[in-house]
Amino acid sequence: MTAKLKQLIRDVPDFPKPGIVFRDITPLLADADGLAESCSAMADPFRQANIDLVVGVESRGFIFGTVVARELNVGFVPIRKPGKLPYKTVSEEYQLEYGTDKIEIHADAIKAGQRILMVDDLLATGGTMKAACQLVEHLGGEIVGISFIIELAFLNGRSLIENYNIHSLITYDSE
Amino acid sequence: MTAKLKQLIRDVPDFPKPGIVFRDITPLLADADGLAESCSAMADPFRQANIDLVVGVESRGFIFGTVVARELNVGFVPIRKPGKLPYKTVSEEYQLEYGTDKIEIHADAIKAGQRILMVDDLLATGGTMKAACQLVEHLGGEIVGISFIIELAFLNGRSLIENYNIHSLITYDSE
Repeated sequence: MTAKLKQLIRDVPDFPKPGIVFRDITPLLADADGLAESCSAMADPFRQANIDLVVGVESRGFIFGTVVARELNVGFVPIRKPGKLPYKTVSEEYQLEYGTDKIEIHADAIKAGQRILMVDDLLATGGTMKAACQLVEHLGGEIVGISFIIELAFLNGRSLIENYNIHSLITYDSE
Repeated sequence: MTAKLKQLIRDVPDFPKPGIVFRDITPLLADADGLAESCSAMADPFRQANIDLVVGVESRGFIFGTVVARELNVGFVPIRKPGKLPYKTVSEEYQLEYGTDKIEIHADAIKAGQRILMVDDLLATGGTMKAACQLVEHLGGEIVGISFIIELAFLNGRSLIENYNIHSLITYDSE
């Protein structure tokens, strides 16, 4: 199954900058069977895990977040860039290659003890997902697992979030 | 059903600026039943319409786009802000209250004659959705309908996209 899904990912050389091969999931998204199988497979390891909520980070985490929430028949909580969420928020700053970035969650989005599945399309350096996990834990959520479509293993993002149960559908061991 | 969903939408006064009441869908998203019913209801009018693809615009259009695509058992195509899509794109500029904005679609995302359902969470002024429809039609897609969760009818966004079959779950007639 993974091999078939991998065929639906397009390699785009030199994006976003020279020397980088971008793994483009848009052909997978556009394929009805590929989309169905990837959504289902992202949820599979967590179907018996009593998940209360799925959390996804703007904006690519929104693509699979809601649909994985539906697979598990739970609700979805968005984490967004600063200034987008209208109600009271808590925020977390994190390091980029150059400079910092910030993400926010509604302060009442998660109740203490709720069991959370984190969802994103791509594990690269892990910085965004680490900050997202910190936001969830700040609200008292218990992170049961993290589900990615793609893991760029050569970037070793897993080391930043090694305390969590990480599941990736497709792994690239080199650029 | 609509009345029940409307109860899950939170009114946040003075966001994003004084005098505006923001209709916050995050409580609806977080509610398992509310999410299930809204996703299903967004797809319902189009289940017999032979849709080929669902299209959603970054980033709030991603929240419901993929899940409506799954409801209809078709694929999903993202329209994104400039510089985010890695492959060859076409773009469309559109007017904001002050200045302009731009969105892009992969040039090979839609084949001529494909039947397209557009999805977004909110119909406000309609400017973004109009530009998104123009992108789809530029690629030869046939827009069968547009499905929103919320329509702010007092902003009259419908007039900008009046040639399309528009479906909204929840309508607000005044601020």
